[in-house]
Amino acid sequence: MAAAGARMAEEVAEQPAVFDSLVARRSDVAAVARLIAGRRPRFALLAARGSSDHAALYAKYLIEVLLQLPAGLVSPSTTTLYGARPDFTDVLYLSVSQSGGSPDLVAATEAARAQGALTVAVTNTPSSPLSDAAELSVDIKAGEELAVAATKTYTATLLSLYLLVDAVRGGSGEAVAGIGELSATALAAPIEDAVARFRDIDRVVTTGRGYSSATAAEAALKLAETSYLGARSYSGADLLHGPVAAIDDRTGVVAVTSTGHGGAAMRDVVSTVHGRGASVLAVGSAAADVSADLRIQVPETAEEVAPILEILPLQRLALALALARGGDPDNPRGLNKVTRTL
Amino acid sequence: MAAAGARMAEEVAEQPAVFDSLVARRSDVAAVARLIAGRRPRFALLAARGSSDHAALYAKYLIEVLLQLPAGLVSPSTTTLYGARPDFTDVLYLSVSQSGGSPDLVAATEAARAQGALTVAVTNTPSSPLSDAAELSVDIKAGEELAVAATKTYTATLLSLYLLVDAVRGGSGEAVAGIGELSATALAAPIEDAVARFRDIDRVVTTGRGYSSATAAEAALKLAETSYLGARSYSGADLLHGPVAAIDDRTGVVAVTSTGHGGAAMRDVVSTVHGRGASVLAVGSAAADVSADLRIQVPETAEEVAPILEILPLQRLALALALARGGDPDNPRGLNKVTRTL
Repeated sequence: MAAAGARMAEEVAEQPAVFDSLVARRSDVAAVARLIAGRRPRFALLAARGSSDHAALYAKYLIEVLLQLPAGLVSPSTTTLYGARPDFTDVLYLSVSQSGGSPDLVAATEAARAQGALTVAVTNTPSSPLSDAAELSVDIKAGEELAVAATKTYTATLLSLYLLVDAVRGGSGEAVAGIGELSATALAAPIEDAVARFRDIDRVVTTGRGYSSATAAEAALKLAETSYLGARSYSGADLLHGPVAAIDDRTGVVAVTSTGHGGAAMRDVVSTVHGRGASVLAVGSAAADVSADLRIQVPETAEEVAPILEILPLQRLALALALARGGDPDNPRGLNKVTRTL
Repeated sequence: MAAAGARMAEEVAEQPAVFDSLVARRSDVAAVARLIAGRRPRFALLAARGSSDHAALYAKYLIEVLLQLPAGLVSPSTTTLYGARPDFTDVLYLSVSQSGGSPDLVAATEAARAQGALTVAVTNTPSSPLSDAAELSVDIKAGEELAVAATKTYTATLLSLYLLVDAVRGGSGEAVAGIGELSATALAAPIEDAVARFRDIDRVVTTGRGYSSATAAEAALKLAETSYLGARSYSGADLLHGPVAAIDDRTGVVAVTSTGHGGAAMRDVVSTVHGRGASVLAVGSAAADVSADLRIQVPETAEEVAPILEILPLQRLALALALARGGDPDNPRGLNKVTRTL
């Protein structure tokens, strides 16, 4: 029998190679991007669940900021539960799912396509029902993922979405040219102090702003599903609005702070939670710029690609905390790989 | 000095009267609805933070299902942090904020209006900066809210959004005609057993599907900000995908289950978490139809207005748990009434 967490550890470690190979095959994504650009969509909608929903959140920022298109996250259930059939003319409808097998996402994509949307599936399974349902599809080329917790498929989805959006605007992927090597550096960052500090904490809040709010959301899910921590994420803006009341010296806070506008907007948020006695772990290329107890430094990149690196040490943290707390993230209690909900 | 939680209790109790007065002044909302319908928007985007974001989530379902318009939730920060200026022609842009004072929402609304959106502010403060920034505005008429935790402004926002969307499609508010009286019944539901069961639980998961996913999200926020519980919400679909692994006999689950498609889709979800040993509290008009330890029955309505009633006993539960745990929800630690984040 393999050691606890061996599968997850292996797939986490594969990420630099996955990134290199994705960047090398950028032309595949660029071909899809040209078809999208030729259709001149006016609005973008994104449908996803679980980790893929966090990748969709990242893509929403990319689309609004880099393509200047209004973009929103949708719920498949308006279609699958309530039979809504909106007019999707001029809509770019991106369905994100590593397995490509979630029946509700497939049904929502079919309905969007029938109603006039340009549908694009982003999956790790090019022959999946979702890829069949959508007009276009992007293969994230992460290789088979055996661990139950999504790691390499999450980051490969982020990178694929970046390459796609960047190519739609006519870019050549410059900001991710060296992402494989940078990711190896990010994966080598020491996490032992953070494990020691967080292993006995039951309540963790993760927070980020802008592009990095996706990282905060994914980190909370990863901690919750592998380590059974009561972890939840808030946008830095929402956190100060209300939930900050629940933050005290029994709370662990993971603050994602990379160089750029999002990280700069986090400084006051992090000072506030630190001032309330929380154990603050800052993660990102601007981790040194905020008030924290512990820091995990990640190589600096353009802000719009920082989420691809920020999550890497947090995947390792989730894995290490699961092991430290006596769990096995490869055999979590009751986790299914494919969402089967209708 | 007033008793702990007296303000919050008073405002919770005011809700039936607020609903009656809103329904009686339906024509004010209908006038705005006629202007919206005349402009024939093709897409809807919703911007909000905190409790108002949950009201926006509810409105997204209303707009997609009842108006058959594609609708998505947006992040003000793409505008305020990154300066995105998408083309908003044909877009209905709804900004939801009880105070109407959040600077980032005001800036995002101004930008959307300048880029061609039909902007509508939904606030409790008709003379607020947000109402000034938007072309049209809807007054939720909840009266001044002094307690820090939003209660009557949340439900008045839901009811106003329902009246607005219903009027845009030419409806006459039939589904909410008796909502004042029904809400008084919902507020009278006994919660003592739930308080006793949940007072010593530190980790609460709330869950719902469809329209009721807004109730689950708002209930988690209310529990977190008043009782300092580690509460988070998941769509019933997302919950089975991953986070179910963290649910065990130390977890409290609040399952929102009303009559209709959303509630029916919750049955398997609730059986699964109950089977894992969680303490399950079912709340809603279909609370009797799921596997649970405790139930709070809410009067039956059309599914699309159920969230207006479902949250009422959960507001009382949050208040009672806060008091039982030695807190004062009127004086929470570090909570600001207006989001000031830029």
